[in-house]
Amino acid sequence: MGALGRLALGRPTREFAPRAKPRPLRVRYALPLLAPDALSSVAYAPDEILLTLAAAGLVGMSLSPWVGLAIAAVMAVVIASYRQTIREYPEGGGDYTVAKQNLGLAAGGLVGGAAMVDSLLTVAVSVSCGAQYFASIIPPLESHPKTVAVGLVAVIMLASLRGLKVLDNLVILAVYAFIAALAVTALVGGIEVAAGRLGPSPAEGLEVVPGRDFEHGLTVLAGAFLALRAFSSGAVALAGVQTISTGVQRFCDPKPRNAARSLAVLGTACAALLLGTLWLGSQVGAVIVADPARQLRYPSGAPVPADFHQDPLWAQIAQAVFAGARPLSVIVIGLVGLLLILAASSAFRWVPALMSMLAEDEFLPKQFYRRSDRRVAAHGIVTLGVGSSALIMVMGASVTRLIQLYIVGVFASFTISQLGMTRHWNAKLPLAKTAAERRRMLVSRAVNALGLALTAVALVIVVITKFTHGAWISLGLVGGAFWIMRLIRRHYRRVAAQLALPKGDRRDLGLPSRVHVIVLVSAMNRATARALAYARATRPSTLEALSVAVDMARVWELRRAWDRADVPVTLRILDSPRRDITRPLVDHIMALRRRSPRDMVVLYIPEKVVRHWWERWLHNRSAARLTSRLRHLRGVVVATVPWQLGPSEEPK
Amino acid sequence: MGALGRLALGRPTREFAPRAKPRPLRVRYALPLLAPDALSSVAYAPDEILLTLAAAGLVGMSLSPWVGLAIAAVMAVVIASYRQTIREYPEGGGDYTVAKQNLGLAAGGLVGGAAMVDSLLTVAVSVSCGAQYFASIIPPLESHPKTVAVGLVAVIMLASLRGLKVLDNLVILAVYAFIAALAVTALVGGIEVAAGRLGPSPAEGLEVVPGRDFEHGLTVLAGAFLALRAFSSGAVALAGVQTISTGVQRFCDPKPRNAARSLAVLGTACAALLLGTLWLGSQVGAVIVADPARQLRYPSGAPVPADFHQDPLWAQIAQAVFAGARPLSVIVIGLVGLLLILAASSAFRWVPALMSMLAEDEFLPKQFYRRSDRRVAAHGIVTLGVGSSALIMVMGASVTRLIQLYIVGVFASFTISQLGMTRHWNAKLPLAKTAAERRRMLVSRAVNALGLALTAVALVIVVITKFTHGAWISLGLVGGAFWIMRLIRRHYRRVAAQLALPKGDRRDLGLPSRVHVIVLVSAMNRATARALAYARATRPSTLEALSVAVDMARVWELRRAWDRADVPVTLRILDSPRRDITRPLVDHIMALRRRSPRDMVVLYIPEKVVRHWWERWLHNRSAARLTSRLRHLRGVVVATVPWQLGPSEEPK
Repeated sequence: MGALGRLALGRPTREFAPRAKPRPLRVRYALPLLAPDALSSVAYAPDEILLTLAAAGLVGMSLSPWVGLAIAAVMAVVIASYRQTIREYPEGGGDYTVAKQNLGLAAGGLVGGAAMVDSLLTVAVSVSCGAQYFASIIPPLESHPKTVAVGLVAVIMLASLRGLKVLDNLVILAVYAFIAALAVTALVGGIEVAAGRLGPSPAEGLEVVPGRDFEHGLTVLAGAFLALRAFSSGAVALAGVQTISTGVQRFCDPKPRNAARSLAVLGTACAALLLGTLWLGSQVGAVIVADPARQLRYPSGAPVPADFHQDPLWAQIAQAVFAGARPLSVIVIGLVGLLLILAASSAFRWVPALMSMLAEDEFLPKQFYRRSDRRVAAHGIVTLGVGSSALIMVMGASVTRLIQLYIVGVFASFTISQLGMTRHWNAKLPLAKTAAERRRMLVSRAVNALGLALTAVALVIVVITKFTHGAWISLGLVGGAFWIMRLIRRHYRRVAAQLALPKGDRRDLGLPSRVHVIVLVSAMNRATARALAYARATRPSTLEALSVAVDMARVWELRRAWDRADVPVTLRILDSPRRDITRPLVDHIMALRRRSPRDMVVLYIPEKVVRHWWERWLHNRSAARLTSRLRHLRGVVVATVPWQLGPSEEPK
Repeated sequence: MGALGRLALGRPTREFAPRAKPRPLRVRYALPLLAPDALSSVAYAPDEILLTLAAAGLVGMSLSPWVGLAIAAVMAVVIASYRQTIREYPEGGGDYTVAKQNLGLAAGGLVGGAAMVDSLLTVAVSVSCGAQYFASIIPPLESHPKTVAVGLVAVIMLASLRGLKVLDNLVILAVYAFIAALAVTALVGGIEVAAGRLGPSPAEGLEVVPGRDFEHGLTVLAGAFLALRAFSSGAVALAGVQTISTGVQRFCDPKPRNAARSLAVLGTACAALLLGTLWLGSQVGAVIVADPARQLRYPSGAPVPADFHQDPLWAQIAQAVFAGARPLSVIVIGLVGLLLILAASSAFRWVPALMSMLAEDEFLPKQFYRRSDRRVAAHGIVTLGVGSSALIMVMGASVTRLIQLYIVGVFASFTISQLGMTRHWNAKLPLAKTAAERRRMLVSRAVNALGLALTAVALVIVVITKFTHGAWISLGLVGGAFWIMRLIRRHYRRVAAQLALPKGDRRDLGLPSRVHVIVLVSAMNRATARALAYARATRPSTLEALSVAVDMARVWELRRAWDRADVPVTLRILDSPRRDITRPLVDHIMALRRRSPRDMVVLYIPEKVVRHWWERWLHNRSAARLTSRLRHLRGVVVATVPWQLGPSEEPK
């Protein structure tokens, strides 16, 4: 089977994240595998720029190239900064590690919380946008955006739970196909523009009604604020560029160099894609507004119908460029939609890794540390699926509204991470051995400081312009996640302090004086016989069999069976006036403990092990309650002696 | 505090069913406590008779006294039969015991399943009907019957979960008040009739449109079938008379005699109530139809409005009798509603008792046997609340539709129980010592045989006339309940057979050759130290400490701490390439077992006992998974050594 076959099909595997460390990949595979996050955000950012500017009508939309250039400039600086992060943190912890190591664990926790919330929003935004693209080629989907989006999330979630390795190969293929399709579209579009034969977009000729604030044209102040708002929406294009810095270990050697190069390539592609999209969009006369029914008008002055469907930008571009060849435009639109879905699925892949990292620092329950454990990973995956579905439902699958939430977390992480890198260089600078090394560090620090300045400014703009549009929700979510994580960590710290062995204090290692063994008996049967034999085998100081009298007839039956079986252990019956099993036993054991507090008590409980889940309701319920009650007594050990029930009645 | 105060207030108690056997009560308290089931069904039966007959217009409704008399006759026979049951089964098992002891366990199971389904329907019917009565005095409730009914179920369920003893006293008071109110109403109504001054019912003057089948009057055949249908609906009046036979033990000595007398009193009251209601209803010109919008017409010929509210029968009667004194009618209607609600609440009281009885015969999970256990009883109560709410929602809180389901189960139980009693006399007859005794038995058998004949005929009528109206649903539910109960019993039987100690076979009692003890270690702390000390105290043949290497840094830390603590036990580290804890340990223990299959292995696991439920997610997860895996290995005992985490950091 050739490389292509392996790419397309993968190996038939049902194993889930089999190794703690995945196999390193060549750049041509690793780069596209980590690219969907960054590429997908560039797919929807231009729409947001245009629809924000459209508030000022077509005049406003003409500002879009300048906004695009500003975003591309910030992107260049951020990419340069992250290349440094990759070189300094080749183990690939990303923003979390940078923040933790340079700014302290609390900053790390904040970045971790933001990353958790961002993962929800990545899925919600990508899938909602993907649903829009699919709806523009399959019109019946138009009227049910929420259902389609939640359905897609469910499909991705199930695929992730299965741990389908074939997804990786699909991602690599889809990224190349996406790049190729968009490049071909741009090329054909460019030729058509040069030949003056570019077909009109479906939106061609529609007029954009300026909002009330812009009815009398653009003032400088209003225009500047509008441009800032468009910038802060479009800045979502930067989301996902940090993914490569978390995945350095997926590259083959030399890992940091390959990763840094890949990031440069990816950044260039993203910037080209962003600017190219805005240019092509203006060439085809694409129109994107927030509220088509109110903002769009036919040249005749009539408003568009209430159920007017507005295609997303790349759908409009592809339809214009391939006006005469609908199948081609369907392919392009389908690939954009597919890439968006795969970007969502990649969040499902990195969330378990993120949770494992947070669990290592005790920000999350310890079990999440073992991310190769299928059941543990499943918790994270299901939480992500359910949480993002909830966001989609609450926000009505509206990409624009979801992005208002998304962008805050993205830039908060950027800013903290850049601050961390700046401090990293400050701390490292005195360690420089040569002047050349020192010079390089100074340059690096300057890059990160510039990155910090730009992302901080962007963050301020985002928070100011978006606060009432939903930024407060994501700030609340991040704060909530951080608070819970701190609570968990504090709990673990407190437990560790309580459990610390005092130096030189060997009290806890001192042996109890005597061992009292009690065997819990409800009937005389083989399971009880085994428990009795095992209890006797440990040769305890005292041994007694205990039964609680719930029903006199049964007590007599038990006594007879006991005598018949000729067990060399005395059977003691505890009275229970209220048919309760737990209370008399606990009282008995507590009395025993009080008489000899330095001894230990071991309670042997015969347990029937059933084969089907529903059978669990039929057995061991009293034992389970007793166990959970006895846990709170000091010096009492509960030993369960299992008896495996077979499928048939054959003796074993 | 006097008797009245105790009646009204009860003792302040938070205890739940504190004794397995409740205190016996004098007849004046026991009878009303057990009466609501029977009385409530007589409260809604006349409505059903009238609305069935109304299909033939006012002509049809004139048949109602005859139908009422037929039901009263059946009731007399059934009451006589149950008085025999009470005398023969004074321990009070009711239909279930009668069926089980005379017809075999399968018949008992069938009766038990029917009783479970009937409990759901008692609650659904009583509460839906109670909601109607409340709606007729609080008009805003009219338009939300389902919400009101489900809300009432929730209130009753919560009160039952709290185990409010004061409910008992409320029931006793309410029954006397109900009887008094209805007697006064009947008396005043009778005087008004005699004086010719009876006020008109709100429905007075409305015309009833006969259904299409009866447009041209009543043929004999159609009339007979209609009367049969009315009989089978009205026969619901018999529901609940068997309650006293299950509660014989609640009466003071001589229990059977007091209970049998009480039943006679109750039966007389029910029959009087049924006939009196029908008579008063016809006197006031009350009109009850299934579908007011289609079946009712003003004298002018105009149909009633679509939102016409039809009051239930006693509401119409009370309003007519107390036409000039609305507060009095409100009190009467309110008391009828209250009695219905209390009848529902009594089902919540006897369902745990029923489940306990079924659990004793292994038809239900064993834990239900201990019905004084609050948490066990809660399962039954919540199931009943949720199930009856579901029925109410599905059936739209329609009393008529719910009764179609209810009546089948009621008569199925009656018939099986009467069959059982007839066989009981057949078996007992040869044991008669004197001719007088024999004669008494023959009379008794004749009574039960007559009861069997009548209830069997009624059952056939019910199934035939109601099958498509919903009887099939309740037959399905009863069948399903019976099937599940049989499954459970079969499982217990099979387990018992597997566990039976073979006679003379002392293999299971033979001691294992050696005891290998393993202590599971994840970190060196006080909890681990205690587990080590306890494990050493049992002086095993071999002892080792085991840790699974998930992370090299932690392994080195553990080794250092181990050496520092100077523990006289060797620490063994198991490698885990996949960061999985369970697999390496299970493999290790299985290897040990294979080397020496006649030995036993005890795994000591230090367990952190937390104080809050949410903290459980933060600890012992790996141990829990390991334990559930090890359960399936023979000869492996898991002993958990608890360490109680304190609220603060103080050492203890």
